[in-house]
Amino acid sequence: MINVLFAATAERWTDYEAPLRAAFAARDLAVDLRTEFAPEEVDYIVYAPNSPLQDFTPYTRCKAVLNLWAGVEAIVGNETLTQPLARMVDHGLSRGMVEWVTGHVLRHHLHIDHFLAHQDGDWDGARMIPPLAEERPVTMLGLGELGSACAQALAGLGFPVTGWSRSQKDIPGITCLSGDAGLDEALSTAQILILLLPLTPETTDLLDARRLAQLPRGAVVINPGRGPMIVDQDLVAALDSGQLRHATLDVFRTEPLPAEHPFWSHPKVTVCPHIASETRPRTAAEVVAENVSRGEAGEPLKFLVDRARGY
Amino acid sequence: MINVLFAATAERWTDYEAPLRAAFAARDLAVDLRTEFAPEEVDYIVYAPNSPLQDFTPYTRCKAVLNLWAGVEAIVGNETLTQPLARMVDHGLSRGMVEWVTGHVLRHHLHIDHFLAHQDGDWDGARMIPPLAEERPVTMLGLGELGSACAQALAGLGFPVTGWSRSQKDIPGITCLSGDAGLDEALSTAQILILLLPLTPETTDLLDARRLAQLPRGAVVINPGRGPMIVDQDLVAALDSGQLRHATLDVFRTEPLPAEHPFWSHPKVTVCPHIASETRPRTAAEVVAENVSRGEAGEPLKFLVDRARGY
Ligand SMILES: NC(=O)c1ccc[n+]([C@@H]2O[C@H](COP(=O)([O-])OP(=O)(O)OC[C@H]3O[C@@H](n4cnc5c(N)ncnc54)[C@H](OP(=O)(O)O)[C@@H]3O)[C@@H](O)[C@H]2O)c1
Ligand SMILES: NC(=O)c1ccc[n+]([C@@H]2O[C@H](COP(=O)([O-])OP(=O)(O)OC[C@H]3O[C@@H](n4cnc5c(N)ncnc54)[C@H](OP(=O)(O)O)[C@@H]3O)[C@@H](O)[C@H]2O)c1
Repeated sequence: MINVLFAATAERWTDYEAPLRAAFAARDLAVDLRTEFAPEEVDYIVYAPNSPLQDFTPYTRCKAVLNLWAGVEAIVGNETLTQPLARMVDHGLSRGMVEWVTGHVLRHHLHIDHFLAHQDGDWDGARMIPPLAEERPVTMLGLGELGSACAQALAGLGFPVTGWSRSQKDIPGITCLSGDAGLDEALSTAQILILLLPLTPETTDLLDARRLAQLPRGAVVINPGRGPMIVDQDLVAALDSGQLRHATLDVFRTEPLPAEHPFWSHPKVTVCPHIASETRPRTAAEVVAENVSRGEAGEPLKFLVDRARGY
Repeated sequence: MINVLFAATAERWTDYEAPLRAAFAARDLAVDLRTEFAPEEVDYIVYAPNSPLQDFTPYTRCKAVLNLWAGVEAIVGNETLTQPLARMVDHGLSRGMVEWVTGHVLRHHLHIDHFLAHQDGDWDGARMIPPLAEERPVTMLGLGELGSACAQALAGLGFPVTGWSRSQKDIPGITCLSGDAGLDEALSTAQILILLLPLTPETTDLLDARRLAQLPRGAVVINPGRGPMIVDQDLVAALDSGQLRHATLDVFRTEPLPAEHPFWSHPKVTVCPHIASETRPRTAAEVVAENVSRGEAGEPLKFLVDRARGY
């Protein structure tokens, strides 16, 4: 019997119990799946942020911690965690992110908010013709699982897409840049900028006043990555000065975003409550079951996190 | 010298004169392009709706009328027009329509309006997770130049797309239907319905109370085709009863849409002032020049309208 501890909130258990049981059964894995075990009996931990489990020391037999989310910043620095850590890469998560990013890029590209604000009977006052996508350069910071999928979808719609990552990439149809000079160049052309980097010490506070000033005037920022990559007050200043046209934000330094935070009432900010893309229980359960099956067969786990890099 | 009469409004002349001259020059066509000629001296007419030119009888030498717009309903029934009529099929027009349709489909798919309406500090009240595109069937009425390009873009994003046309089509990745029974089926699954048919006697009043009732409850209608395909009061009734969630309309029976029309103030209607996709002067001028060049070489014109079909 393989003992799998589900170490997330009770609400997640409701969503994940049945899909996980089904996914283990589909692979003929004899799994005992529970929300409680004696720590020394646990073989795998299925983990999600906000879990009360913070001390991994007593889980002496545990072969791996399997994160249910794509981002691991809440666990990767935990010094009691000596077991291998895998993150979530899931078909549903990628598709959801492609849809959300493409939808908001097109919303800003087409000035849909302008038309929604002109429902007052003034036909000529509402008229405006946006340029074609081929005349609207877009930049993607992060070319990992999610960033590269979004970049390719946007290029498919005709946007000239520049992407930036730590290691140099080569993706057909995308201008791939890396390094510090690459970031300067990537920002300088970005009429629409999307953040899909992981949160690490290097990416924290990345988008500050200096970086925002490198964008073309009137640029739009879309952040479905992580809140602390943006310096909040610098973003507000750039919106107020007209340097930025709009910011659509799905992630924040504090979540839920406090009701008194200026983002909520700012006319040029759209707050989304961290919904850009959810891990989908059915597809995510299959990824977890596959990794348990690999662990049992002595094969390398998929989507292992590099603890030194932080993602 | 080839005499080309530009028979559209003065405003269009401002936009089109330079691109047309450049396109003719690029093909080494010795064209005299003007807004006035003695009718019997004209070789080609470049035409747009709202033109004062309505009687084509005196244009005895004219080899073709080249429409600047994709839709020809304003001219195709003109009985004085005995010359061949070509419509506009232009790269910029198609790309613009793909972007507009994809943007509004994603807007409704992702419930972007819901998030824009929840900027009041209530994080949990704003939360909702839409399904994936693969769980959101979309139907395209019309699979011509524009409808098929939009259908393929939507399928590329993961939507299950059904298309309907007069003649049976076979487009990879699209469920193609035709005929009356095909329309029943196409409507029955359409969570989002897009109209990209030409306006003809057959398509006038197509979407009436009976047809709207065939849609799944809560469907969204997007009309960038032509206004008279929808029976206005039936659409309002379907929105009021909850049969439809929303209608995003770019075209109307009367344009500009009169300020007192109920669409403007209806909370479930988005009025766009016929901006979904414009003919773009530079690319359209190249299409006109190509057709003049073909006409001079005795080759068949491109994009000829079938007067009996009406499009
Ligand atoms: N809002 C939501 O609903 C939601 C949902 C899922 C995920 N997310 C966020 O999206 C992030 C990205 O997810 P993913 O699956 O695409 O991650 P990933 O596959 O690990 O990709 C991360 C990308 O960022 C690049 N990168 C990392 N550090 C960098 C640095 N210092 N400078 C330049 N580039 C750097 C990486 O470069 P290399 O390729 O060179 O390694 C890689 O291209 C997650 O970490 C999470 O925070 C948000
Ligand atoms: N809002 C805007 O900015 C804007 C801009 C451009 C165009 N438009 C509108 O978009 C329309 C479509 O343009 P297009 O270039 O795609 O036209 P198109 O190439 O002529 O295609 C028309 C499509 O509709 C189908 N169709 C015609 N009559 C039908 C009927 N009675 N029953 C079923 N299907 C029928 C045709 O079927 P077959 O393939 O079998 O012939 C064809 O698939 C234009 O006519 C214009 O009104 C609007």
